[in-house]
Amino acid sequence: MKRLNRTAISLVVGCMGFAASAVWSADTLQDVLKERGLSQQDLLAAAKTYVPTGKRDEFVAFASGGQSGQVIVYAIPSMRILKYIGVFTPEPWQGYGFDESSKAVLKQGRIDGKDITWGDTHHPAISETNGEYDGQFLFINDKANPRLAVIDLRDFETKQIVVNPIFKSEHGGAFVTTNSEYVIEAAQYAAPLENKKFYPLEEFNEKYRGGITYWKFDRKEGRIDPAKSFSLELPPYSQDLSDAGKGASEGWSFTNSFCSERYVGGIEKGRPPYEAGCSAKDTDYMHVVNWKKAAELVAAGKAKKINGHDVLMMETAVKEGVLFLIPEPKSPHGVDVTPDGKHIIVAGKLDTHVSVYSFEKIQAAIKAGKFESKDPYGIPVIAMKDAVSTQVSLGLGPLHTQYDSKPCVAYTSLYVDSQVAKWNYCEGKVLDKVSVHYNIGHLMTMEGDSTKPAGKYLVALNKLAIDRFVPVGPLHPQNHQLIDISGDKMQLLYDMPLPLGEPHYAVAIDAKKLKPAVRYKLGTDSRTDKPHPAATKAGEERIVKKGNKVEVFGTLIRSHITPETIEVEVGDEVTINLTNLERAQDETHGFTVSTFNTHASVEPGKTVSVKFKADKEGVYPYYCTEFCSALHLEMQGYLLVKPKGWKPTKTGLAAQNYTEADYKATVKKVADTQVIIDSVVAYITSVNYKDFPEVVAMVEDAFDQLGKTKDIKAKHEAAAAKKDWENANLWAEQVWQYQVKTADLGLRAKTFLEQNGAKKVK
Amino acid sequence: MKRLNRTAISLVVGCMGFAASAVWSADTLQDVLKERGLSQQDLLAAAKTYVPTGKRDEFVAFASGGQSGQVIVYAIPSMRILKYIGVFTPEPWQGYGFDESSKAVLKQGRIDGKDITWGDTHHPAISETNGEYDGQFLFINDKANPRLAVIDLRDFETKQIVVNPIFKSEHGGAFVTTNSEYVIEAAQYAAPLENKKFYPLEEFNEKYRGGITYWKFDRKEGRIDPAKSFSLELPPYSQDLSDAGKGASEGWSFTNSFCSERYVGGIEKGRPPYEAGCSAKDTDYMHVVNWKKAAELVAAGKAKKINGHDVLMMETAVKEGVLFLIPEPKSPHGVDVTPDGKHIIVAGKLDTHVSVYSFEKIQAAIKAGKFESKDPYGIPVIAMKDAVSTQVSLGLGPLHTQYDSKPCVAYTSLYVDSQVAKWNYCEGKVLDKVSVHYNIGHLMTMEGDSTKPAGKYLVALNKLAIDRFVPVGPLHPQNHQLIDISGDKMQLLYDMPLPLGEPHYAVAIDAKKLKPAVRYKLGTDSRTDKPHPAATKAGEERIVKKGNKVEVFGTLIRSHITPETIEVEVGDEVTINLTNLERAQDETHGFTVSTFNTHASVEPGKTVSVKFKADKEGVYPYYCTEFCSALHLEMQGYLLVKPKGWKPTKTGLAAQNYTEADYKATVKKVADTQVIIDSVVAYITSVNYKDFPEVVAMVEDAFDQLGKTKDIKAKHEAAAAKKDWENANLWAEQVWQYQVKTADLGLRAKTFLEQNGAKKVK
Repeated sequence: MKRLNRTAISLVVGCMGFAASAVWSADTLQDVLKERGLSQQDLLAAAKTYVPTGKRDEFVAFASGGQSGQVIVYAIPSMRILKYIGVFTPEPWQGYGFDESSKAVLKQGRIDGKDITWGDTHHPAISETNGEYDGQFLFINDKANPRLAVIDLRDFETKQIVVNPIFKSEHGGAFVTTNSEYVIEAAQYAAPLENKKFYPLEEFNEKYRGGITYWKFDRKEGRIDPAKSFSLELPPYSQDLSDAGKGASEGWSFTNSFCSERYVGGIEKGRPPYEAGCSAKDTDYMHVVNWKKAAELVAAGKAKKINGHDVLMMETAVKEGVLFLIPEPKSPHGVDVTPDGKHIIVAGKLDTHVSVYSFEKIQAAIKAGKFESKDPYGIPVIAMKDAVSTQVSLGLGPLHTQYDSKPCVAYTSLYVDSQVAKWNYCEGKVLDKVSVHYNIGHLMTMEGDSTKPAGKYLVALNKLAIDRFVPVGPLHPQNHQLIDISGDKMQLLYDMPLPLGEPHYAVAIDAKKLKPAVRYKLGTDSRTDKPHPAATKAGEERIVKKGNKVEVFGTLIRSHITPETIEVEVGDEVTINLTNLERAQDETHGFTVSTFNTHASVEPGKTVSVKFKADKEGVYPYYCTEFCSALHLEMQGYLLVKPKGWKPTKTGLAAQNYTEADYKATVKKVADTQVIIDSVVAYITSVNYKDFPEVVAMVEDAFDQLGKTKDIKAKHEAAAAKKDWENANLWAEQVWQYQVKTADLGLRAKTFLEQNGAKKVK
Repeated sequence: MKRLNRTAISLVVGCMGFAASAVWSADTLQDVLKERGLSQQDLLAAAKTYVPTGKRDEFVAFASGGQSGQVIVYAIPSMRILKYIGVFTPEPWQGYGFDESSKAVLKQGRIDGKDITWGDTHHPAISETNGEYDGQFLFINDKANPRLAVIDLRDFETKQIVVNPIFKSEHGGAFVTTNSEYVIEAAQYAAPLENKKFYPLEEFNEKYRGGITYWKFDRKEGRIDPAKSFSLELPPYSQDLSDAGKGASEGWSFTNSFCSERYVGGIEKGRPPYEAGCSAKDTDYMHVVNWKKAAELVAAGKAKKINGHDVLMMETAVKEGVLFLIPEPKSPHGVDVTPDGKHIIVAGKLDTHVSVYSFEKIQAAIKAGKFESKDPYGIPVIAMKDAVSTQVSLGLGPLHTQYDSKPCVAYTSLYVDSQVAKWNYCEGKVLDKVSVHYNIGHLMTMEGDSTKPAGKYLVALNKLAIDRFVPVGPLHPQNHQLIDISGDKMQLLYDMPLPLGEPHYAVAIDAKKLKPAVRYKLGTDSRTDKPHPAATKAGEERIVKKGNKVEVFGTLIRSHITPETIEVEVGDEVTINLTNLERAQDETHGFTVSTFNTHASVEPGKTVSVKFKADKEGVYPYYCTEFCSALHLEMQGYLLVKPKGWKPTKTGLAAQNYTEADYKATVKKVADTQVIIDSVVAYITSVNYKDFPEVVAMVEDAFDQLGKTKDIKAKHEAAAAKKDWENANLWAEQVWQYQVKTADLGLRAKTFLEQNGAKKVK
């Protein structure tokens, strides 16, 4: 049992030893089916959803997280969750709410001067160009604290939060117009529009109001422009979901409502509860808005400023002919414009019908001035019979409708029946039904909100899972079920538990339309998309102290943090700026300082800042929180918080007592390792590696790493010349560390080439 | 187009209409394979991992979330994520950190008087009985802010957080002794043990220390008892992972280390970085501790109090013979005791070998007093040759070892090679290797840390995904790959992206061993497991105002919150206590008040409190945040914050103007609906529904709902007798609301019975 420096030798053995073994054992498919109790149908479903290693899913879904305040990204058909995006809730893995730039985003969401550290996300919307999903931006709302967020799909990060200036709750956002000119957000529970204004419930009809906000989106900036946004005052009808017109109905939008009874509950005082009073009438109102004209009216100065925000009052909207009502079946949820924009389908949750409204009929009634009445606020009401082209009885609790790529085919969720109905809205007939588990809320077809639905799959967003999964306590996951809609009959393919959050709605896009970056331009502030003022290049790291402010300009690279020691005095305000120097895909570093409640996720090229007051003396380790390399645990440093005026009594760190023999052994190890690297390089360059972009990136990264050894070699040779064996040995060791990273990449590339059929080249 | 009250009629049509359609289209398996580009091997892997709807997975894994500060629960073999458990990070979906009881748990984790709102969770451990996983509790550590949390697996909630009293970082927790007497937590980056004590790095060797904490677990209370816990002072060797002895080595524990060079970096000052200085020697030290004897010494008063905590100092530990060192291959990570407790396997990340240590040899050396030297702190060092039974060269970057159900078979992750090696530790030979994607950290076999590993599956916890999934920006998911280990050759089955967090380690248990509850005893505080002082039964709801303190004792049930109005004066301190009256599985309600940054998740039977200062006037809606029923949007209320001294000028809410005809129509709807309910009941009772526990629960719930109509019926009849048509109609409507809930459950039960082969009974 020798304690030799066997590392170098073993490195060789490791490389020459076992190749990857992909030989499968002899068990047959039949044995597996029998053992696992799978039917032929199950096998077919498995084959339709399984995505083998190295292959990609077809669609990407964005689901709201509900009370988690996040956005959930998952892949279809495998139903694997790819990412939770922090939106209204701090999320430390992403550093969201723990570094200064992301704190600033969350700070935009403060209400009445206070932090709101959660949200109730409901309805995501992908930005559109000509009514088709373009994969550039995602919008998501917060029902509880009326806010809207913008996520950039280049890096899947939240860039902006805007607070609704006049609402106290909003459920019906986000919905976009066909070129994302506006993001539509409707109020839910009525309240006075003036901020912090109290009126008693006895004045509900007079002083409480609903409304719709049209947020102006500046696509070039990738941000909402609050100054160019406006709202429409509406009656206190509990506005619910919206949809923007498209094609035939371009320039209009539709918003439904519930509790148009304007009922005020109070079960504790002996009154029937809201649920009884809000569902007592047979119909509620769909709001029909000419938003293009409304925007013109606002631009012409016809809006009133409320809380500093442009609000087009009902009186003006009615007078100018931009606002109409149409009865709709009671307590509706979805209001969904057909892909061609010619129809609007409304599902009345407490009715069994879906109603197909004709935009042409609506326009004819408006042009003819044919209204059956006015509502108590003077808004003209179009008769249902003058607006509806057909009604179809689908089942109990119809809720939300999505569209197929096949003409006239729609899918509607049935909450109480726990079913999805497939039906034809041109012919008004039911085509198929499938049971889901259980109590489906929304549903989603692929690109199903766009002018060109992609068909193929449907996801049922079931609100209850009950018995579907291994139990995990009283709080159950949700259950999103994947359904194949490519044939005549729907086929249930897959049950997907949602482990965090309660999605309300989701949208899915063709995965090929998403083109996110894998790195940032060196020194980017990812939340502003601009160069970070504290971006730092290799070799320019420094610590600047001014008064009681200490600012660190540092860098991160496999596997060290520069600087490795930060000395401050107690009471100092410390800002640590870190730039990730990596260029390689997936080479994220993290950063934290023990007990100072700060964390940063630093993807390749990004610069982040963390800031805290060093309000206690002591020794606080910091480290890279990502398992970024074999020596990630050694990617460490110390924050030393010294007492005020402390003076050192001892100088010099403990000697390591390395000898010339140690140095020579390390140098030999470096030479031996280089032989291995050369052999891997020889293999890689012997095949057509340039045909594999992934490998080209790995090779670039490998040479990045190896390139760093040159300067370091000079250092150990200089130290050796001075017989400084400690520094000579350790700098030589550092050369080897870079070699290990190079070998890591080289072997990864070699394995990839071997497994992906690389061919010999001359 | 009639606006009739067609609801009742349609309800009938809905029930009689389409049955669930499960007819599969005619496409064949071959077509699917061809279209999706799947091989026969892919199909076999799909068949081995697919879990059809209604069936359950075999194993449940608990993975740390890393920088997300959470625990991730997923199912094997489907690799579906079932739950994220909030541990060190507030998580609003679970109300964690937003209601008072969970805030109190997080508050236990405050350090130096400040909130720490995130953690870096690393190594979960399931509680053990006789060395086998018992599925009762889960322990998880926080590396960044040295803390440990206890999760109760009856409800998957975090119950306790303890702060390490002497460390500044700890990576190597949690590891349990064979009956969970202690939870082991080792320090990582050395620092002075005294709290807030500064010593310069020049005094690193003298004043900086590592250590191991043994947290005493009180199983009956389900909590750690800090007063009965103790630590062992250790040299500043960057202690890393641990494992407890078992069987032969019962009563002992093993902790490895890196950077036993005690190197202090400082690249910014021209010194080689930590990564070079910490990996310069060929070996580090395994710490061998007789924890049973150490506990006795502490009980005998031989510990020193540091920061009020019992610390057994090195000097005492050496003198009393409870602490030994053994060299181990450089920069090791895993230190893994074999199922029989006879061997300890150490993987040296920068060596290609795993070393198999023999507990018998170690004991022989200790008994014989045969030590090769003492370390600089006087700790006896056992020679490697006197402790190791064999060394096996596995490949580059061996990291962590897990065990199979087959004797002598182990699996070791190879970080640099991106492979898993299967090998025999008795015979010292490699059996198989498989490539993984990419850079595997830990790995996990089923119950692989216990005395009885279950074999069958292995999960590779890969640190990089790079190209495996549809891209989602610079921050990639991790990739956990499922490997079939049932045959001679390992087979890669499945790639699972981790959407949030960066798991370091995971443990998996047979799903059948987990027996979580589906509801709480009515009025339980889930964080203390005790009756909540503000638990409220139906009919006992009330609002109590004392001075400027308003306390609400409310309830939640489908679909109303009692009370529906809360009136306070500006400046009042408001506490809202809510009890979920539901008994049905998965009937969780949520609660929030607009813009007051509070949220509660209230599972069946639970009581929670939320508290805030009503520091602004105005009207603030509150609502149930869960989509709990068809009328969940109507589960609403208003917090009215009145100006001080405000007096009403208007009394009486707006009339709803319902007529006798409205009342009669509603009564007819109720009668019609009862016909449907009766028909569903007739079907259910015509089959053997009592053989299906899920259905029995649904039927109970349905009758719960229907039972509520009796009192309500009396109310509408009393109002009708007084010709109060508004109340008569609305209370009748409320009867119908309960009927809808009953029908919902009945139909769900009916579908279940139809799909699960219920049989006719006489």
